[in-house]
Amino acid sequence: MYEFSFCNPTRIEFGSDKEKNIGRYMKEFGVQKTILVFGSNRIKQSGLFDDVAASLTQNGIEFLELGGVKSNPVLSKVNEGIELAKSFAADSVLSVGGGSCLDSAKAIAAGALYDGDVWDFFIGKAKVEKALAVFDIITLAATGSEMNSGGVVMKEETQQKYSLSGFPLYPKVSVINPTLQATVGSDYLVYSAADIIAHSIEGYFTADIQPEIINMQIEANIKTVIKTTEILLANPDDDAARGEFAWAATMALNGLTYVGTRGYSYPNHMIEHAMSAVCDVPHGAGLSVIMPAWMKWWKNRNPTQFERFANEIFGLQTADQGIDALKAWFDKIGTPTTLAQLNIEGQVLDKVIDNAAQNAIDWQMSDTYSKDAIREVFELAK
Amino acid sequence: MYEFSFCNPTRIEFGSDKEKNIGRYMKEFGVQKTILVFGSNRIKQSGLFDDVAASLTQNGIEFLELGGVKSNPVLSKVNEGIELAKSFAADSVLSVGGGSCLDSAKAIAAGALYDGDVWDFFIGKAKVEKALAVFDIITLAATGSEMNSGGVVMKEETQQKYSLSGFPLYPKVSVINPTLQATVGSDYLVYSAADIIAHSIEGYFTADIQPEIINMQIEANIKTVIKTTEILLANPDDDAARGEFAWAATMALNGLTYVGTRGYSYPNHMIEHAMSAVCDVPHGAGLSVIMPAWMKWWKNRNPTQFERFANEIFGLQTADQGIDALKAWFDKIGTPTTLAQLNIEGQVLDKVIDNAAQNAIDWQMSDTYSKDAIREVFELAK
Repeated sequence: MYEFSFCNPTRIEFGSDKEKNIGRYMKEFGVQKTILVFGSNRIKQSGLFDDVAASLTQNGIEFLELGGVKSNPVLSKVNEGIELAKSFAADSVLSVGGGSCLDSAKAIAAGALYDGDVWDFFIGKAKVEKALAVFDIITLAATGSEMNSGGVVMKEETQQKYSLSGFPLYPKVSVINPTLQATVGSDYLVYSAADIIAHSIEGYFTADIQPEIINMQIEANIKTVIKTTEILLANPDDDAARGEFAWAATMALNGLTYVGTRGYSYPNHMIEHAMSAVCDVPHGAGLSVIMPAWMKWWKNRNPTQFERFANEIFGLQTADQGIDALKAWFDKIGTPTTLAQLNIEGQVLDKVIDNAAQNAIDWQMSDTYSKDAIREVFELAK
Repeated sequence: MYEFSFCNPTRIEFGSDKEKNIGRYMKEFGVQKTILVFGSNRIKQSGLFDDVAASLTQNGIEFLELGGVKSNPVLSKVNEGIELAKSFAADSVLSVGGGSCLDSAKAIAAGALYDGDVWDFFIGKAKVEKALAVFDIITLAATGSEMNSGGVVMKEETQQKYSLSGFPLYPKVSVINPTLQATVGSDYLVYSAADIIAHSIEGYFTADIQPEIINMQIEANIKTVIKTTEILLANPDDDAARGEFAWAATMALNGLTYVGTRGYSYPNHMIEHAMSAVCDVPHGAGLSVIMPAWMKWWKNRNPTQFERFANEIFGLQTADQGIDALKAWFDKIGTPTTLAQLNIEGQVLDKVIDNAAQNAIDWQMSDTYSKDAIREVFELAK
C-alpha cells in the first residue's frame, strides 16, 4: 500500500427520526446561530422543515432560511448564503437536502470566514483553513458529501463546475434517515446509483497502485448498489435496502476506498461536469452515459482490472463483457446510456467538449485528456 | 440496517518512516509533556526508541519512559504509569509497541485524570469522560486498538482480563509503518492473523441484524488476512502484503464492521480472556484454539451465515466444511488449534472455565454462556 494520511471526523447519526434531534446535536458543538440551507419547498410540505425548525428552536438555536438551492448548484446562490451568514453572524450552516444543498452549504461555510472571493477555493487560489461548522440532514444518498470534505458548485458566467475541499468542511454531524430518503422518485434513485458506481470505479480503474483490500471494499459497495437498487425499484419502502443503499453511498466517497492507492483521477466526473454545466442534466444521468463509453476507451490501459470487474461484479470473463453488462444494467434500471437520450448532440456536444477540455486543463489532466481524446470518449457514448 | 451513531476521529499516518514525525504530529495537538510507554528493550536495540526520542526532543516535547509493559498487560503497570503521569503532569501518553502497550497507554490516559481507582472504568463503575491525549506507533498489527477507543488489561489479583472504553481514548494520531511491523516473528504474525479473524467473526456470526454490505466488508478483511499471512510467511519483507495485513487489522475493529448491526457479542474473546488470564498464553494463540470449537458449538444458531462463510472464504458449501477449513488453515500457518498445544488441561482447564464463567456473568453473557456451556465449548477444543 502506498503511504497515506487518513482522518475522517464526521459523526454519522443513522436511523429513523434522527433528524428530529438535529438541534441537540448542533448544541453539543456550541451552535447558536445557523443558516438553514434547502432546495425546493418540498421539505415544507413534507413536514421535514417543521421538524427541523422545532428541534433548532427547542435547543435555543436561531436560524435564517436559504431556500432555492437547485440541482447542479450555482455560485450565485452560494454568494447569497455567504452574505446572509455574514450579516447574521452565523456560527454554522445546516443543510437539509441532497448533495447539491450540502455542497452549497460547505461553500457558504468556507466563504463566510474568508475575506476574498469564495471562488478562490475552487480554482486553487486559496485554501480552506477555517469554516463555519457544517451539519446536514442528507435526503438523497448519492454524492457521499455527508462524510467527506468536498463540494461541487458551478460558476454560471463561465460554466465551470468545479470543486472545493478542506478539512474544516467535514460535516460535524450528518443525519442519514433511510426513511426520509424513500421520498425520492425512481428517476433520482437510478441517477444516484450511477453516481455511487462512478465514485467507486474512478479510483478502481485509474489508480497505479490499488491494494487488493481496497478492490474488495469497492466491489462490496458496487454489489450493494446493484442489489439494493433493484429491490428499491420493486419496493421503494424496503427500509433495509434503503439503508444499505445509503450506507454504500457514504462509504463510496468517505476516503476509505482511496487509502493506500496512488495515481488515481476522476475522468468520468471531469467529463460529466461539462455535461451538467452546459446542459443542466442530472449529474447521475450524465455519469451513466459517460461511464460505459469511458470504460471502453480506457480498458486497454488496465486490462486485468477490467477483467476482474467483469468477474467480481457480473460473474463474466472479459473486459468488454463487464462493460456491456454495466451498460445493460443501466438500461434496465432506466438511467440513460446515450448522449441522444440527454439531447446532447451537434453544436451542444461541441460546447460540452470545449467545456470538458477546459476542465482537463484546469484539473491538470490534459496530458491524457486532450480535446481529441474527450471527443473520442463522447463518440463511444452515441 | 439498524440505527447507529458512528464517529471515529483517529488520524492514521501510514507509511515508511512516519514514526520519525511523531513529535511533529503531537505538537500539532499542543503536546508538551508525554509518557512514553513501551514493552521490552527491543525498541532501544532497533533504533526505534532513538528515532522517537529525537523527534520528541526536536519538537520541544519532554518525556518520561515507562518500559516493561508485557503481552497480556497488567493493571499494576497501568497504575505505575498513572502515578508517573500525575507526578510529571503529563498532557499525553505515547505508546510505542503493540496492542498491549497501547491498551495500557489508554488506561493510563484515563486514570491520570480520574481521582478514583482506574479499575472502576473496567467494571462499569465509572465512565471515561476525559483522558490525556493518546498517540501511538503501532508495531504489531492485530488488536485494532490504533483506531478504536477500547483497551484490555488484566487485574493480577483477581485474574480478571477486562476492557475499558470511551470516546476520549481514540488515539489522536496512530502511526502504522508496515516496515516496522516486519520485525515481528512468524509466531506473532500467525497469532495476529487469528486475532484479526476473531474480530471479524464475532459480529459476523452472532449479530441478529447483519447487513449484507457489512458481511462483504468483513469478508474482504478475512480474505486479506488469509492471503497476506501466507505471503508474509514465505517472504516477511513483502511490503505490499505487510501493508494490507496491517490495514485489515485496523479495519477489522475500527467500528465500521459493526455499524447497522444489532445484537452481537464477543464470546470468543470472553472465553479466550480467561485462557490468557489464567495461563498467560498469547491472546491470538488462545483465539485460534477457541474459534473452531466455538464455531462448532454455535453453528446451528445461524446456519445460513455459516454456509455463507464456507462459501465466501473457502469456496466450500457446508457450515462444517467452513469450520474445518479455518481450523486446517490455522494448523497450516502454525497457530495452535487444541488445548493440549497450550497445556491447558485437567485442573488448569477447570480454573480457566471458572474464570470464563465469571467473565460471562460480568459481561452479561451468562444467559447463553453458563459454566456448562463454556465447558462444552472447551470439550470441542480438545
